[in-house]
Amino acid sequence: MRYRFGCDLSYEVTAPTLFVFNVEAARIPHHRRLSETLTLTPDYARRIHVVPGNDTRYLAINAEPGPFNLHYEASVDLDVLHADPASIAETPVSDLPLEVLPYLLPSRFVSSDRLASFALREFGQLDTGFERVTSICNWICANIDYKRGTSDGETTADESLLLRAGVCRDFSHIAIAFCRALGIPARFVSCYAYGLVPPDFHAIFEAYMGGRWWLFDATRQADLDGLVRIGVGRDAAEIAFCTPFGQMQAGPVNVFIERLDGEGESAPRTTDAVSTDESAPPPEH
Amino acid sequence: MRYRFGCDLSYEVTAPTLFVFNVEAARIPHHRRLSETLTLTPDYARRIHVVPGNDTRYLAINAEPGPFNLHYEASVDLDVLHADPASIAETPVSDLPLEVLPYLLPSRFVSSDRLASFALREFGQLDTGFERVTSICNWICANIDYKRGTSDGETTADESLLLRAGVCRDFSHIAIAFCRALGIPARFVSCYAYGLVPPDFHAIFEAYMGGRWWLFDATRQADLDGLVRIGVGRDAAEIAFCTPFGQMQAGPVNVFIERLDGEGESAPRTTDAVSTDESAPPPEH
Amino acid sequence: MRYRFGCDLSYEVTAPTLFVFNVEAARIPHHRRLSETLTLTPDYARRIHVVPGNDTRYLAINAEPGPFNLHYEASVDLDVLHADPASIAETPVSDLPLEVLPYLLPSRFVSSDRLASFALREFGQLDTGFERVTSICNWICANIDYKRGTSDGETTADESLLLRAGVCRDFSHIAIAFCRALGIPARFVSCYAYGLVPPDFHAIFEAYMGGRWWLFDATRQADLDGLVRIGVGRDAAEIAFCTPFGQMQAGPVNVFIERLDGEGESAPRTTDAVSTDESAPPPEH
Amino acid sequence: MRYRFGCDLSYEVTAPTLFVFNVEAARIPHHRRLSETLTLTPDYARRIHVVPGNDTRYLAINAEPGPFNLHYEASVDLDVLHADPASIAETPVSDLPLEVLPYLLPSRFVSSDRLASFALREFGQLDTGFERVTSICNWICANIDYKRGTSDGETTADESLLLRAGVCRDFSHIAIAFCRALGIPARFVSCYAYGLVPPDFHAIFEAYMGGRWWLFDATRQADLDGLVRIGVGRDAAEIAFCTPFGQMQAGPVNVFIERLDGEGESAPRTTDAVSTDESAPPPEH
Repeated sequence: MRYRFGCDLSYEVTAPTLFVFNVEAARIPHHRRLSETLTLTPDYARRIHVVPGNDTRYLAINAEPGPFNLHYEASVDLDVLHADPASIAETPVSDLPLEVLPYLLPSRFVSSDRLASFALREFGQLDTGFERVTSICNWICANIDYKRGTSDGETTADESLLLRAGVCRDFSHIAIAFCRALGIPARFVSCYAYGLVPPDFHAIFEAYMGGRWWLFDATRQADLDGLVRIGVGRDAAEIAFCTPFGQMQAGPVNVFIERLDGEGESAPRTTDAVSTDESAPPPEH
Repeated sequence: MRYRFGCDLSYEVTAPTLFVFNVEAARIPHHRRLSETLTLTPDYARRIHVVPGNDTRYLAINAEPGPFNLHYEASVDLDVLHADPASIAETPVSDLPLEVLPYLLPSRFVSSDRLASFALREFGQLDTGFERVTSICNWICANIDYKRGTSDGETTADESLLLRAGVCRDFSHIAIAFCRALGIPARFVSCYAYGLVPPDFHAIFEAYMGGRWWLFDATRQADLDGLVRIGVGRDAAEIAFCTPFGQMQAGPVNVFIERLDGEGESAPRTTDAVSTDESAPPPEH
Repeated sequence: MRYRFGCDLSYEVTAPTLFVFNVEAARIPHHRRLSETLTLTPDYARRIHVVPGNDTRYLAINAEPGPFNLHYEASVDLDVLHADPASIAETPVSDLPLEVLPYLLPSRFVSSDRLASFALREFGQLDTGFERVTSICNWICANIDYKRGTSDGETTADESLLLRAGVCRDFSHIAIAFCRALGIPARFVSCYAYGLVPPDFHAIFEAYMGGRWWLFDATRQADLDGLVRIGVGRDAAEIAFCTPFGQMQAGPVNVFIERLDGEGESAPRTTDAVSTDESAPPPEH
Repeated sequence: MRYRFGCDLSYEVTAPTLFVFNVEAARIPHHRRLSETLTLTPDYARRIHVVPGNDTRYLAINAEPGPFNLHYEASVDLDVLHADPASIAETPVSDLPLEVLPYLLPSRFVSSDRLASFALREFGQLDTGFERVTSICNWICANIDYKRGTSDGETTADESLLLRAGVCRDFSHIAIAFCRALGIPARFVSCYAYGLVPPDFHAIFEAYMGGRWWLFDATRQADLDGLVRIGVGRDAAEIAFCTPFGQMQAGPVNVFIERLDGEGESAPRTTDAVSTDESAPPPEH
């Protein structure tokens, strides 16, 4: 499927500020890039940092006082791997590639260590595999309210569980905590999400099973095969769309995504397992 | 029913220490006292403080360095009020006697303010009345494991909910938090509990409905009509069986309770509403 | 000194609501009441609850949907006990009257149990007595910023210590926590405060030493001999000026206090120990 | 200087367990390796993972039920870079290499976001540069007690600040939090530490200034020029010496380090700035 997407970000800089942006579509084979423009006004010098191992791209800009705008726009053919959920088994921890082990560790907003007994009690007896992560998403949907304004940039998975409410970042943090506590590597994914209302940057998560990272959206707000990945990280701390160091006021955030190839717009949401990970060959089935 | 109960407490005092004990059976009409002895070795002077309004008795002892023992033993005829749960309605907040309002407020271990949305989401839509508090107890039994060693004297209801485990004090704190968040006054009760295995001081809670405080045991560990009340408070901070100010090592705690009138020992646990509160006439039914 | 003071509170009630107000000057001998009016519009029925033991008065009102206003105005001659700080010794815990022991226990916003080692480390080696509590206030003034908007109604002493900022309630909570951890009973006091800019309900604290409760203001925002006491409690949870149970929007809060006997308006702030507690005879000096 | 060091670790494995060890000296030019042996009993297959970008080496072992021991022993010539602290300026955030930016972000045990105002208030007005980080270490030494048994594997910097006590991991977490909050990249370093009593794995931290990572030990327990680096990470979550996934009991941990070239054993501790980072040329001075 072909998508056009992007964002407009505007700032009023009041003292020299380093901006680190994470808004560009990931440069992965599943994204066949058709067009891409990133415009800065003023046109400050750009530095790019690609995280070794996961392709997340950071764009760093040193901005001077005054208004500053970023416009990003791109189009890609999104080529999503579909698989039968029943075919995807959990990978025993002993068989995990060592480079995914960091995604079993607790992180700033994902206190999987403190939530270990919670996760084991609620999900420890379930059949393992893709369906167990689906059960985690189901539990979160049934137990946590999606409600704007209930969390902020310092809210942890613990706090969201007690509040029983949150937004996409919080849903993902809870899910990631449960997965890690159960020995399933899990990580935070930022993306453009087709079908999200209102349009915004979206946060979902990936769980590593059967030799590959699979996409999950605990909020059920968007189509799993309409997600254009931006970056991945341990949790929201690592992949904010904008991390400023300095002094500025942020203006409104405008995010957009539309489908360019109309056919199938009204297709039902997929119940397949979905992946855009390049790190492994497709599972055999 | 007639019970004999008591405790043996021993300490090795290393610097002059004020002990505040809360171990004597409450002096309430539902307890017809048959015998009572409290022995201190050495026989230090005793000061008694009875909390205005709820009859909780504190015994204060200034102990010198050296061994110090307390032996308490009493027997009572326990005359419990039984009622039909279906007959007990919640009291609208607007009709509550003002002296019970403090039991709607959050306290050290009962963060009912932070758990308001949790409680409303889980129990807000249920039918009100005695059955709603029973539902709270059922939820706690189903979701929290009774497990020794999972909490300590600083554990809050929040923490127990995330850990999904606790002991009687924690079960009571969670239940009290939910009740208060729903507008039902609730308080912590320490007691001797017939049937508790192994014997120990027990913590349960009372909820105020229909003009009276009703007993609940979220742990389901003991018979509701076999509870000899010691004291009540906002939470465990107020009615520890021993609060020492000074320096000492505590020895083992021995608690005992036996039934003196044997008949009916093996009767099933009551499913009635049960109260030993004196503050109101029995509900009409 | 003679003060006129009061408040205007307005609400838009959207569903039947129980309001519990705590705004009237305490009925204590140190307040010689000259005039007092409390006007409700509409003129709903009033219920009064006086807490046994500390004279805090709660006014309970059941309000119907619609606008609701409270106007309170009073004047008193405030007769404050002054004493030489050097004359006031801490009371050993073993000599405390038992009715003040609850003010040694942790409460919702005062986690004196968790802060015990903090308090001992910072203040444990200081000379005991009134000056130690003054040192606590000095430390708080030096280490915590008075900054509006940094806390809310759920902020605890722990959180304020990490944030290094707060308002009068937070300053008082920290001070109370340190006092309790050191074995000095301490409690939260709400008041009208002459000299507070801008005028507002103020929160200070009392510490029990030498047989009497002494006033302290860790914020140093108001004159210690210009405080008209409203109520006391374990912490802010117990003596909010308004605790509503129901649905309403609160309008602006207007608080006022002026001095009626002009002489000495510009006198320097007292460095005396100050008390308006009735529970004990003045200390000998 | 020449050191011999290593460790003996023993486990009783009760179910198949993946062990991830992080005990080998880092393979960096500052460590001229003279000898190195790592013996496993039984001699299980070994997998090695080196973190891209920071040379941390993880050793992964799948162990079967039964006793399992690891013996590690190595000797290196440690060639430490010394510099004049006064010559080392902070690097403005705008000039930081992008690959160090992750070390400005909060992590599991380092809530630098929540501690931002604390850090700014305490250290924001100090002269910048190496001396500011030294001031942070001084503050921690003066305000936090080094006390075994006060923390565990889930303790955060926040909690240590409230407890005013901790061990090396906690001291490092606090220091890292303050540095990050001030815009100074900082990371956790595990090491063998000459002079540490009793011998144990040690945790220190590095701050990035003047184009290089500099070593700091907020505990002041060991010589800065006697530290053999093992690994680095965002915080303790990433570089535990052993992270087991499975079921086992850990036996005693034996760590040793001795100096092989005797001269200068009794030299005073260095007050130089010290680095063993390879990522940059030495600063000019």
